[in-house]
Amino acid sequence: METVAIVGVGLIGGSFGLALKKAGFAGKILGVSAPGTLEKALERGAIDQGLPLEQALQHADLVYLSQPISRILETLASIEPWLRPGSLVTDAGSTKAKIVGQAQRSIHQAQFLGGHPLAGKERRGVQEADPDLFLGRTYVLTPGDPSELETAPACEFIQWVKAIGAVPLSLSPQEHDRIVSLTSHLPQLLASALASTLAGRLGPAEHLQVAGPGLRDTIRLASSPYDIWGDILKTNTCEIEAALAAYVAKLEDLRAHLCSERMRQEFQIANEFASRLKQQHTCESTAQVRSTPSLEESTG
Amino acid sequence: METVAIVGVGLIGGSFGLALKKAGFAGKILGVSAPGTLEKALERGAIDQGLPLEQALQHADLVYLSQPISRILETLASIEPWLRPGSLVTDAGSTKAKIVGQAQRSIHQAQFLGGHPLAGKERRGVQEADPDLFLGRTYVLTPGDPSELETAPACEFIQWVKAIGAVPLSLSPQEHDRIVSLTSHLPQLLASALASTLAGRLGPAEHLQVAGPGLRDTIRLASSPYDIWGDILKTNTCEIEAALAAYVAKLEDLRAHLCSERMRQEFQIANEFASRLKQQHTCESTAQVRSTPSLEESTG
Repeated sequence: METVAIVGVGLIGGSFGLALKKAGFAGKILGVSAPGTLEKALERGAIDQGLPLEQALQHADLVYLSQPISRILETLASIEPWLRPGSLVTDAGSTKAKIVGQAQRSIHQAQFLGGHPLAGKERRGVQEADPDLFLGRTYVLTPGDPSELETAPACEFIQWVKAIGAVPLSLSPQEHDRIVSLTSHLPQLLASALASTLAGRLGPAEHLQVAGPGLRDTIRLASSPYDIWGDILKTNTCEIEAALAAYVAKLEDLRAHLCSERMRQEFQIANEFASRLKQQHTCESTAQVRSTPSLEESTG
Repeated sequence: METVAIVGVGLIGGSFGLALKKAGFAGKILGVSAPGTLEKALERGAIDQGLPLEQALQHADLVYLSQPISRILETLASIEPWLRPGSLVTDAGSTKAKIVGQAQRSIHQAQFLGGHPLAGKERRGVQEADPDLFLGRTYVLTPGDPSELETAPACEFIQWVKAIGAVPLSLSPQEHDRIVSLTSHLPQLLASALASTLAGRLGPAEHLQVAGPGLRDTIRLASSPYDIWGDILKTNTCEIEAALAAYVAKLEDLRAHLCSERMRQEFQIANEFASRLKQQHTCESTAQVRSTPSLEESTG
């Protein structure tokens, strides 16, 4: 792997460039973005050179698509003519089935391997890029078939994923989308719906004084921008609908049993799941060298 | 105010004792609790003496009920014969209408004034008591009629509420219960329901790796114990049902519009509410001297 083209040099793309360099990548990193973004990316040292898409693709052994999901889909549909045979195309989109499907239809000259780094920050843009963004973070890879992880370009890419401190995890695109509909998209909608419900039912500022840290944590994701979530909702609609349906059914069930002993069991189940998740987090934190964990609103 | 009886010397009661002393209260603080708890409370210096309920009441100018809600209701129903005429009875329960109603039926010798300090910690018990627990925190008072705040014992109590660093806010019991059903009880049920839904739909441990800080924050309240929440659910059932119904309706609405432009507006409304709440929090933090904000799972 001698030349990497990062298409969309924002927080994730910029961080990937910085992380590669920190991990000892000695090749060339090309950036494809708007002129103003390329300038900032060059200043940050996240890329070595800005180029138009077609030129960058002609040189790249690894094409890293870190655009918004809808742009990734467009890029995949158009880049085939310029890809180097034997190169690897990957992406960092937060939903995978639509992206992998588009790649299967459009990419033939090169190998495509979908990816989703579970990393991010509250603030976006290459100016927020951080070489340690992926440290200790799960990096999901979504081969159409497991054998796709065993090709030479895939093996080399996975080595670099590990080198930047991330923890690769292989899932099918469908499995990935089902899991994130529960672990990421459902929490997002639930927080947005909570904020929207409260906005309609709480009056003067003093009502907000009757709120503690519990509300603030539960509602934190409500700050997430629609710009990112619109794409996620449109590319994982079925799974999100199913997750919401299951969640609403659970809420209706709780509502019907507010005063019954059933609630004790539900709290018990919830307590146990929360402990499992906390334990998981503790393991990750131990693996992580960073002092402050980054937030991931912006990446879904 | 020369003698205070704290009935239920746990986290809140113990902290109230410590906070009074730190604020310069020179009178006597009596504690009513199980023998083991009284021992710990004496060690911590949260009380000066442990006494049986009836004896403590006979000496107290201020009776501070910081038991679980169901115990507060029982205590209110039985203490009338031992109360000093002219004394003030208050409580720290997280729901107010049932408690104020019980007090109106049972307390005649003394004045009753309901209260709800929005303060707490993840861990309970007098060993966690903290003289700074109330610093910068809203302390809701729920008079049946506003004139109840103007009696001599009420004025003196409110002075002490301010002296321990809390910010008094007057609401009717019904108004309080409606607001906390939205700002506290709804977030709790929503987090419990999320944890319970995920527990039923996520399989092996590796699925938990596909979760970021967003999920952890949204689900944090799911660790709350039923021991506290059972009472809250049973004493604020109607308001909680109404809050849940509004929330479920909002979720159903979002589910029907996942891919439409309506979602952009909903995110916009949610973004704005989240900003308002953050701003409120920033104001509180500025008012607060403490370095780490306490959590309030345990107090609802």
